[in-house]
Amino acid sequence: MKENLEFIYHIPPRILFGPGSLEKLRNEKLPGKKALIVISAGGSMKKLGYLDRLVDILKSLKIEYVVFDKILPNPIKKHVMEGAQIAREEKCDFVIGLGGGSSIDSAKSIAIMVNNPGDYWDYIIGGTGKGKPIEKPVLPIVAITTTAGTGTEADPWTVITNEETNEKIGFGNQYTFPTLSVVDPELMLSVPPHLTAYQGFDTFFHSVEGFIAKIATPISDLYALKSVELIAKYLPICVKDGKNLLARTYVALANTLAGFVESTSSCTSEHSLEHALSAFHPELPHGAGLIMVSEAYHTFFASKVPEKYIQLAKAMGVDVDSLPAEERPFAFVKAMKKLQEECGVGNLKMSDYGIKEDEIEKLADNAIKTMGGLFEMDPYKLSFEEAVEILRKAYK
Amino acid sequence: MKENLEFIYHIPPRILFGPGSLEKLRNEKLPGKKALIVISAGGSMKKLGYLDRLVDILKSLKIEYVVFDKILPNPIKKHVMEGAQIAREEKCDFVIGLGGGSSIDSAKSIAIMVNNPGDYWDYIIGGTGKGKPIEKPVLPIVAITTTAGTGTEADPWTVITNEETNEKIGFGNQYTFPTLSVVDPELMLSVPPHLTAYQGFDTFFHSVEGFIAKIATPISDLYALKSVELIAKYLPICVKDGKNLLARTYVALANTLAGFVESTSSCTSEHSLEHALSAFHPELPHGAGLIMVSEAYHTFFASKVPEKYIQLAKAMGVDVDSLPAEERPFAFVKAMKKLQEECGVGNLKMSDYGIKEDEIEKLADNAIKTMGGLFEMDPYKLSFEEAVEILRKAYK
Repeated sequence: MKENLEFIYHIPPRILFGPGSLEKLRNEKLPGKKALIVISAGGSMKKLGYLDRLVDILKSLKIEYVVFDKILPNPIKKHVMEGAQIAREEKCDFVIGLGGGSSIDSAKSIAIMVNNPGDYWDYIIGGTGKGKPIEKPVLPIVAITTTAGTGTEADPWTVITNEETNEKIGFGNQYTFPTLSVVDPELMLSVPPHLTAYQGFDTFFHSVEGFIAKIATPISDLYALKSVELIAKYLPICVKDGKNLLARTYVALANTLAGFVESTSSCTSEHSLEHALSAFHPELPHGAGLIMVSEAYHTFFASKVPEKYIQLAKAMGVDVDSLPAEERPFAFVKAMKKLQEECGVGNLKMSDYGIKEDEIEKLADNAIKTMGGLFEMDPYKLSFEEAVEILRKAYK
Repeated sequence: MKENLEFIYHIPPRILFGPGSLEKLRNEKLPGKKALIVISAGGSMKKLGYLDRLVDILKSLKIEYVVFDKILPNPIKKHVMEGAQIAREEKCDFVIGLGGGSSIDSAKSIAIMVNNPGDYWDYIIGGTGKGKPIEKPVLPIVAITTTAGTGTEADPWTVITNEETNEKIGFGNQYTFPTLSVVDPELMLSVPPHLTAYQGFDTFFHSVEGFIAKIATPISDLYALKSVELIAKYLPICVKDGKNLLARTYVALANTLAGFVESTSSCTSEHSLEHALSAFHPELPHGAGLIMVSEAYHTFFASKVPEKYIQLAKAMGVDVDSLPAEERPFAFVKAMKKLQEECGVGNLKMSDYGIKEDEIEKLADNAIKTMGGLFEMDPYKLSFEEAVEILRKAYK
């Protein structure tokens, strides 16, 4: 494949990276005087003391705040609209997302809707979204991530589910990048093993998909291969020993790099397929859904762009050159399966989350209809039948 | 050396990269209504038709402009002050640097001085600079680079010579990043061989120095090693066959990546030493000065941080593992010398530019006094005597 040497490169967020970086927020100029703090409904930001720490920093900077604490693991449109209304009523002039991807993505979508009229889905491109242009300013966004999964602190994307239509669609533009992001691995030490694995594989697939995507560039490739290397080395350590700060730091770095990949390349149809699964089965964690689809998906694509998969296998530390030529592209799939086993997620089943085999055509159809754009990013154009076949092979 | 995992990452410019990207400026929102266009005194921007092309684009976007065409190859403070006065009188609300590093750096420094009172040297940190804070807004900066050398389109730095005091000092902060940059290798096709080589080695040393610098991070290392790899592969082709667009594109990419290195790591004292040479001998091209210093400099540092130099040699394509252990760190210096020879710059002499051997102590002293900050970035702290010794070894 010829390298793509014509592109627009733009990753504007200022990122405070590393252990202890939350405290460094005290030295920063925040982009407003009153924040809407967006956190999950689960209560962990309060229990872990992270909300108190943030509030203390805001107070020291003489910044007012309101807390909006309703976000679900698969965040929904209703809460975007509610959060925006509160921000409007309370005259907040910026939004802080504190937590995992769901809280930060919601913060981004709320930031869009504070000044823009109508319904969030009026602006969404794809599915039943009306694709209207965003005409009023998006509020500045600060992202403080407590997980290593979505890379949202380093990309413009927000993924929200329309709970009325079962559509889970990614959206964003150059104004939905955070202006300031905090990636403090100390905040990630308490993520439990199974979520660490799900989130880590979300990171992993952002990088893998961004590497095989048609619009990949030599710069996005740098990020993708390093991110894959770091996940392969350090994710199993984080799963087994969550308190290992060095391993957490490298996985956090892999995640930020994967966010860079998403900013400069794209996910592929693997993400569309998963979004269909978790749009209809919101209790399915996104990373788990990706893992379920991954073996069938990447076996298929390894036969289409073998040279890309050989590079991915090398990034995972496989001594590819010692293998027979015909096995080399699939060495990546093997290494990925082994990594999943090491992380305790080698045998996830769709049926355990209530997904039925006879839903598969509906799910493939939903993936193409709501997130067809990502199919255009694939290095080989999947037909509906091939998408169904991948899901069928992935089903257990 | 332990990796540096605590850092602030910030590279905000929107970069239009690749052949034909100048035309893509037509689709962008520029950051103002009236531009000061800063170009060199040499006349090449007019002769090559680049100024006309830019003016045509501005007209199509209904943007007014004034041209300031006095910039010298080693740009001086006097022209910064003059440009700022014109921008003020003409009510320009943004600045476009069109050309090589000298024009873009001047555009940055002019953008600082339009709204800020007093003399440019009032704000400079180092030497006789007064280090005052910049209190008024810096005008937005657009960078259109026609050379691959300084990386200034992708970093916040501007290097200006104070012609009254013979000080050449780099300066910048988060507001002196270009908001928008164009890196169009088609504009680089006409750079003559010797300048292609000088500029390419400037890029090369930004990456090499940024890789050995104390504040290097795993992300700046990605940029640095890729940049070194691309220069080693493609610079000799550009020197021999200037019209080779693919080679020009890869060298332009190396240069943008080196700009990222400068944004996320730092130059080291090699740059301070060269700035002293060209501050006293302004006819010496910066890249040529770096080449003159490089063999002695990197031989010295290869003995201090051998593992870093082994990685650099690998990036240059050297099969380091096949060498005896004691030769490995110096394999980089050998490969660099070979690259210099391939590019026709293997035998540059300080004496050819009027530099006298008995100036060396004065030059080392100037380097430490005016750009001592970069000595702090070295992986080993050079004494004055060691700096003198490096220059003495480099002298011919």
